[in-house]
Amino acid sequence: MSMCTSADCKLCEFLSSKKEVETSFNRVETQQAKCKFGKDGVCCKLCSNGPCRITPKSPRGVCGADADTIVARNFLRAIAAGSACYLHVVENTATNLKNIGEGKGNVQIKSVETLNNLAKVFEINEEDTNKRIIKVADAVLKDLYKPKYEKMELVEKLSYKPRYEKWQELNILPGGAKSEVFDAIVKTSTNLNSDPVDMLLNSLKLGVSTGVYGLMLTNLLNDVILGAPKIRQAKVGFRVIDEDYINIMVTGHQHSDIAHLQDKLITQDVKKKAIDAGSKGFRLVGCTCVGQDLQLRGEHYEEVFSGHAGNNYTSEAVLATGGIDLVVSEFNCTIPGLEAVADKFNVKMLCIDDVAKKKNADFIDFNMDKAEEISDLIISTALESYINRRGKVEIDIPKDHGHDDVVTGVSEGSLKDFLGGSWKPLIDLIAQGKIKGIAGVVGCSNLTAKGHDVFTVELTKELIKRDILVLSAGCSSGGLENVGLMSPGAAELAGDNLKEVCKTLGIPPVLNFGPCLAIGRLEMVATELAEALGVDIPQLPLVLSAPQWLEEQALADAAFGLALGLPLHVAISPFIDGSEVVTKVLEEDLVNITGGRLIVEDDVIIAANELEDIIESRRVTLNI
Amino acid sequence: MSMCTSADCKLCEFLSSKKEVETSFNRVETQQAKCKFGKDGVCCKLCSNGPCRITPKSPRGVCGADADTIVARNFLRAIAAGSACYLHVVENTATNLKNIGEGKGNVQIKSVETLNNLAKVFEINEEDTNKRIIKVADAVLKDLYKPKYEKMELVEKLSYKPRYEKWQELNILPGGAKSEVFDAIVKTSTNLNSDPVDMLLNSLKLGVSTGVYGLMLTNLLNDVILGAPKIRQAKVGFRVIDEDYINIMVTGHQHSDIAHLQDKLITQDVKKKAIDAGSKGFRLVGCTCVGQDLQLRGEHYEEVFSGHAGNNYTSEAVLATGGIDLVVSEFNCTIPGLEAVADKFNVKMLCIDDVAKKKNADFIDFNMDKAEEISDLIISTALESYINRRGKVEIDIPKDHGHDDVVTGVSEGSLKDFLGGSWKPLIDLIAQGKIKGIAGVVGCSNLTAKGHDVFTVELTKELIKRDILVLSAGCSSGGLENVGLMSPGAAELAGDNLKEVCKTLGIPPVLNFGPCLAIGRLEMVATELAEALGVDIPQLPLVLSAPQWLEEQALADAAFGLALGLPLHVAISPFIDGSEVVTKVLEEDLVNITGGRLIVEDDVIIAANELEDIIESRRVTLNI
Repeated sequence: MSMCTSADCKLCEFLSSKKEVETSFNRVETQQAKCKFGKDGVCCKLCSNGPCRITPKSPRGVCGADADTIVARNFLRAIAAGSACYLHVVENTATNLKNIGEGKGNVQIKSVETLNNLAKVFEINEEDTNKRIIKVADAVLKDLYKPKYEKMELVEKLSYKPRYEKWQELNILPGGAKSEVFDAIVKTSTNLNSDPVDMLLNSLKLGVSTGVYGLMLTNLLNDVILGAPKIRQAKVGFRVIDEDYINIMVTGHQHSDIAHLQDKLITQDVKKKAIDAGSKGFRLVGCTCVGQDLQLRGEHYEEVFSGHAGNNYTSEAVLATGGIDLVVSEFNCTIPGLEAVADKFNVKMLCIDDVAKKKNADFIDFNMDKAEEISDLIISTALESYINRRGKVEIDIPKDHGHDDVVTGVSEGSLKDFLGGSWKPLIDLIAQGKIKGIAGVVGCSNLTAKGHDVFTVELTKELIKRDILVLSAGCSSGGLENVGLMSPGAAELAGDNLKEVCKTLGIPPVLNFGPCLAIGRLEMVATELAEALGVDIPQLPLVLSAPQWLEEQALADAAFGLALGLPLHVAISPFIDGSEVVTKVLEEDLVNITGGRLIVEDDVIIAANELEDIIESRRVTLNI
Repeated sequence: MSMCTSADCKLCEFLSSKKEVETSFNRVETQQAKCKFGKDGVCCKLCSNGPCRITPKSPRGVCGADADTIVARNFLRAIAAGSACYLHVVENTATNLKNIGEGKGNVQIKSVETLNNLAKVFEINEEDTNKRIIKVADAVLKDLYKPKYEKMELVEKLSYKPRYEKWQELNILPGGAKSEVFDAIVKTSTNLNSDPVDMLLNSLKLGVSTGVYGLMLTNLLNDVILGAPKIRQAKVGFRVIDEDYINIMVTGHQHSDIAHLQDKLITQDVKKKAIDAGSKGFRLVGCTCVGQDLQLRGEHYEEVFSGHAGNNYTSEAVLATGGIDLVVSEFNCTIPGLEAVADKFNVKMLCIDDVAKKKNADFIDFNMDKAEEISDLIISTALESYINRRGKVEIDIPKDHGHDDVVTGVSEGSLKDFLGGSWKPLIDLIAQGKIKGIAGVVGCSNLTAKGHDVFTVELTKELIKRDILVLSAGCSSGGLENVGLMSPGAAELAGDNLKEVCKTLGIPPVLNFGPCLAIGRLEMVATELAEALGVDIPQLPLVLSAPQWLEEQALADAAFGLALGLPLHVAISPFIDGSEVVTKVLEEDLVNITGGRLIVEDDVIIAANELEDIIESRRVTLNI
């Protein structure tokens, strides 16, 4: 079977050696024929008169909708769905936290400091820790459940003032986040809204609620439960899979769902069960974003977490090593392709959130009240699977894949600590030109922007060569770490100035913030830098790129970036090219609205040039 | 320009005479080329690796999703969006009612009796009427806003016990309705759920919340505010447009949004303004479902409501008569094609709910607190438009279009009253075979099932010929009344038995329940009949057909019908033909799950045969 390429050569070699295993890498070849109407966003399937598609000879659908309406509607609906995904995660995280405060699940929080910071920001005065936990969680939940016509209260408390005022001025401060999603779904239904500009502004509004709650807050609530990130070195890649253990691969974005399991797996009783079955114990193998989050907080889970194996499109290959005994899925990106590979390698699949129910998975609905029962089920299922399959399934783990020295645990907090408790050293390095600027290279991995992680890796190399420090969060970081760009040795690939900085500080030129949720952390860094400089975010020498965005969630992230006023590059157009109005608003006019700008560019060098130019012009304006 | 046909010949003639006006009837010709992937539901645009489409050579998308996953996901998402639309309507209706209870908007409720009935069902004991209003509205709103993991409380109170127990057994009792929609959107996002059966059961769950709240409750809440329907005769068709008046056409589904306006338009002050401008006064011209609802309650609005002109795809032609001065849109089905026709005929457009914002419309956000201000704005805009456009725009109203004697105002309540306060006379007629059975011919109008209203009208004629009484709600009823099937004279088209019944009772063989929302009324009739007979709904000699379903909402309606256990016919497949699992579950297995069954049949006679067969087999089982 022919297959697409990857920036990760050893992954390609491994997949090529598994000719009997079909993965996404093969299917991308059979799905080469792309529908131009779909790609341009001018296909509409909202009613039984359709599908309609816009062409020069049929410039309107049956109902009269033109390309602008159809494109904007598809775009808004995708963002609403992506927003819903992130909000589902923050809602469950807040609910888990609240339940912990109520004594359910027998989980102890790991960062009282983050809890106290949140309580302070939320203006909650409460002596009792458990009650403080409940009040913090409730403040989030209350906002999420407000009706659309009531503005959420935490947005102002959590946002940078100049941005808040801009959003207020543009009338894009969100009402209750869940209701906003709901109404955007209504708005994009058959024969409802037809105004592309209204729908684009609505997209930005969803960006704000997605960003502040789904991105920023989820991280902070997780920090309370699971411990704040600490910078350290870690192993990544297939080498983290140790066949001597019973290996559980978790996929998803809802780390707090496995808080109880993480602690339980290393209790003496449970370890004894594993040892009695012939293994050395249980291990969690990181994959997709929950794996990135485990890695980010690895400091707190050294024994149970074996390391991060790879990103979304690495997951099928991870199963094909034969080293995994159980997949526990709690959200995306659990690609359907896992099902057939799991069947082939006799890997049990268990799902703990019905939104992510896979065809061949058993299902049990997680809630903190049942944490003990669910952990027991996961453990017994993994144990049984281990006993059933080992010896029968070939295990072939390429131990030369990955690295031992990836710098992880970077967050808005740990980075500031690393800098001595102030952003000044970083600002000074930028002012001196040692660091020309900062690029967030974030988001997913896809297989179509030159191949798996190819655009991400090439663009990152171009940026660091130009002395631009890269921060990464999302599956992009999984790709970048597996090819070595997050190891200190990658300093050699940076421009002379950045190389010197990296060597002095002992850091790589690409900093690993972990999961896509941590795009919110990166935006907290941006806010703090703007605050320290006394400027608004669009004035910073800071750009975003989600070169290999994949999912609807990525588009919701993008909407937040654009609402924050950041230039945002993507290598693949988000299905908008069929509308002049939509492309003009997002790629040109927006700069005069929020300060943000969408840049669609599928050439690595041209994209790097554009991002560098923006950074340089910002430096000129800042007079540095 | 070539155009598609309509069951309504005079409408066709009129449109043919307006060669300079492009409408949906013309565009259906330029959109003849249909994408087979889209029609079969096997196209996926959820990620940047796509669009993917399933073919024999590429049986899976890049991610591994197969046809079953993709079809079920598209289907569930459409139903979720349709459900959201109906829930948006019931939420706003309940909010309007609550605000009225709080004294906002200066609106007096018109049916204390319905209020009291609801209070009784909801087990609310409250002496004070305003407080009772608030408590009833709050009970609805509270349920809508519950999280997914808390079941809604009114479902049990409002549902037929055997059905409630069936839904409980199937685990499809909905949690908070808005959260259910939200989670279905999450579930259908990129790389989340892949299990078609889980997604189909989820569709049924959304059907229950859509039906009980969006359909049944909306009508009852509207009855409180706007008055319960009373059976009467009314004018329909273009003849209702009187050029001597200032004519406001309202489009949408949220009748309570214009409660204040209706009363205000006939105050002396406002009439004087109209007369001073040279007209005889203001009139509301009915179009789409809000027009049907106005017609249904016409008894209470004789002076201000001129009558129902036509359904969704008649609306462009209504503007092309030149007789309309202002379009006020508050929801769908406000087709985008209206925009160009409005511009051509110099008709102002005003939108009062941003979900329905049209490109060329002015916008003001309705809430009951601002009802006075909004009514004033509507009145002044209409007045200004009248003054600006009359004399400059050709007015050409085909006064021979439509009928004077359409029987309207049929509801679960008024029909029972008509029968003498008991269902027994109807049951007796069914038992005697005078009426063979009942068919709900409901839903939208589209242009692709043989043309505008063609399938609906032909099927209805076939059914009444076979002595099957037809009840209609939705744009289908707009079509049926405009071709005369809801006038008493249509008895001549019925079979001998049904003809005799009609003549004896002075009714047509097709009863007009009004808007699509009233599908909920029709389902209340079904429930009451089942209750009276002591059987469950799937045992009734009652079938549903939504032959010309159009919108996502129609699919949510369909999900309710299937959850109720009703056979449901559609002439156009709801984009599911590409999946063996989905078609098998909906068309075969479902009968053993809920008792319902989807019948996709694009031949009128075969469809009528199938529906008749079902009715006859039910009669056999009931031993009648």
